[in-house]
Amino acid sequence: MAQALAVKNPVDLVRTQLHDVEALLEEATESQIEAIQEAARYVLGAGGKRVRPQLVLLATLAAGGSLERALPLAAACELVHTATLVHDDIVDDSDSRRGRMAVQFHIGNSASVLMGDYLVIRSFRLVARDSSRELWNLMVDTISTMCEGEVLQIQVKRDTEVTVEVYEVIIECKTAILLRACARIGGLLGEAGPATVDALTEFGYGVGMAFQIQDDILDFIGDEETLGKPVGGDLREGKVTLPVIYALQDAAPEDREELLRIYGKASPLTSEEIRRATQIIEIAGGFDRAHDHAQSYITRAKRELERVAPGEARDALFTLANQIVDRRS
Amino acid sequence: MAQALAVKNPVDLVRTQLHDVEALLEEATESQIEAIQEAARYVLGAGGKRVRPQLVLLATLAAGGSLERALPLAAACELVHTATLVHDDIVDDSDSRRGRMAVQFHIGNSASVLMGDYLVIRSFRLVARDSSRELWNLMVDTISTMCEGEVLQIQVKRDTEVTVEVYEVIIECKTAILLRACARIGGLLGEAGPATVDALTEFGYGVGMAFQIQDDILDFIGDEETLGKPVGGDLREGKVTLPVIYALQDAAPEDREELLRIYGKASPLTSEEIRRATQIIEIAGGFDRAHDHAQSYITRAKRELERVAPGEARDALFTLANQIVDRRS
Repeated sequence: MAQALAVKNPVDLVRTQLHDVEALLEEATESQIEAIQEAARYVLGAGGKRVRPQLVLLATLAAGGSLERALPLAAACELVHTATLVHDDIVDDSDSRRGRMAVQFHIGNSASVLMGDYLVIRSFRLVARDSSRELWNLMVDTISTMCEGEVLQIQVKRDTEVTVEVYEVIIECKTAILLRACARIGGLLGEAGPATVDALTEFGYGVGMAFQIQDDILDFIGDEETLGKPVGGDLREGKVTLPVIYALQDAAPEDREELLRIYGKASPLTSEEIRRATQIIEIAGGFDRAHDHAQSYITRAKRELERVAPGEARDALFTLANQIVDRRS
Repeated sequence: MAQALAVKNPVDLVRTQLHDVEALLEEATESQIEAIQEAARYVLGAGGKRVRPQLVLLATLAAGGSLERALPLAAACELVHTATLVHDDIVDDSDSRRGRMAVQFHIGNSASVLMGDYLVIRSFRLVARDSSRELWNLMVDTISTMCEGEVLQIQVKRDTEVTVEVYEVIIECKTAILLRACARIGGLLGEAGPATVDALTEFGYGVGMAFQIQDDILDFIGDEETLGKPVGGDLREGKVTLPVIYALQDAAPEDREELLRIYGKASPLTSEEIRRATQIIEIAGGFDRAHDHAQSYITRAKRELERVAPGEARDALFTLANQIVDRRS
């Protein structure tokens, strides 16, 4: 796949359509209640990279489908993603820590719930523009699984004995399943047949798994400015992610004890504790092992592309996959 | 409509189908994550009267549609209703008061959000069983409006200058629109033509408005045991409902001042304050006027039924309308 090098930026191939998606997002968040419209657009505008719309559009292109038809679905996937960010941010009264978005934009729990609901519902309005019931069901099943994944994540919070297997189920449900759906939608819109649909579906899944693992790595060692949020958020919330799981396996006994102590701490963590935990994970090779893990998903995902017709769109997907595991924000 | 007297209980006409709806609700809440399944079923089992499924089924029958086809839609409407109860219950950190369901069943804010999301999503899975895009869009628009109504309600919380007009917009959005959709679904499933669809839609709307007004009356003067919750909940949450609006218009000046003082109080209200507010509203005739208001919606709703073909189903809808405004729980 030497020609993959030709595509500098996958976005270039669908730049016009990504503008159309933005217009659809504006339209979808129109409301007579000003507070809703304002908040919805604020949240949607908050630095989203539009990875999901890109994936829908490029997969559609790769499968030979209509980009016009893909637009509402691409926008719908972004709305669903945004809704999960909003709902993830609900502050539990047992847990006074703030989520990410709340830091910049605290509209209260009740309003956040309604905002998230609103975004999901609006995504369904976009999905209904398409007459394919297969697509409706795909979206419904995807979001349903995402909810289950989030509950599972709550259940294992602060459980430092969580295994790689359980971690994978969680990130599959909360992230990979939506990216899988994005790529599958593209496949279904095309005329290239079931093998292509299947290949794109698996590609989306692999890319989604790698995406979340990389996210979990960057949550510790990313650049705060590029990320737009302070590092250590998962640690503060007691989320035991892949770098931590690996570090707990491989760290020296005293480092392991210290990491466990930090995770077990009931009161809010200091910056020094977060810095120290990050250092322990680094020394134990947790980030490297997690990155290798992500890389293996990307390798598998790219291999799936061999079943897709060659061309610019396939090359762009190839590049997109590389970008996901190499990104720094 | 003398024959209306013949139908003692509207439920009798669709008893078998209501059992089928229960089975669909069980099926819709199946989950591999035990916590989700348990919580969803608990919430669904918590004494719901299944007014929405009844309305879907009876309207379908009145319009000459297939009850078989109506079943998933009837279940979907109940799931949506239950989801709103769950999401209404999210505790704001600025507001330490507990919602209703939380009293019996506190699963935390995060889990409640996901539970509500899950119920809405599952309702769409049921809606997707039907190939009608009109029905899908009706559900989408209905839920979208419901979200807007809830936000509006948050915005006017503790605003004792709220008008009857704004109150009506709120209850239209948060309650009437869903009952309207239930009856409209029934109309759309039938073959009786647009006049019947329109009549049933308006019927559902009127019944929905009356239903919420009656709910707001019962929130003060209902029987705690039959209601399954303590009285005065709306007052505690600062919701200015119709009996209060009327009482503020008609009460003697010193009573009015006292009512305003109670609504303006920042700290939790005592039982004595709730008893006293209820007494002021009663003396000012607020409950009577609100009840008359509800009754006028029921009268209009029943008049709409004249455009529906006569028969058992129409009689049952007639009785259902009367029951809604006469109910004590």
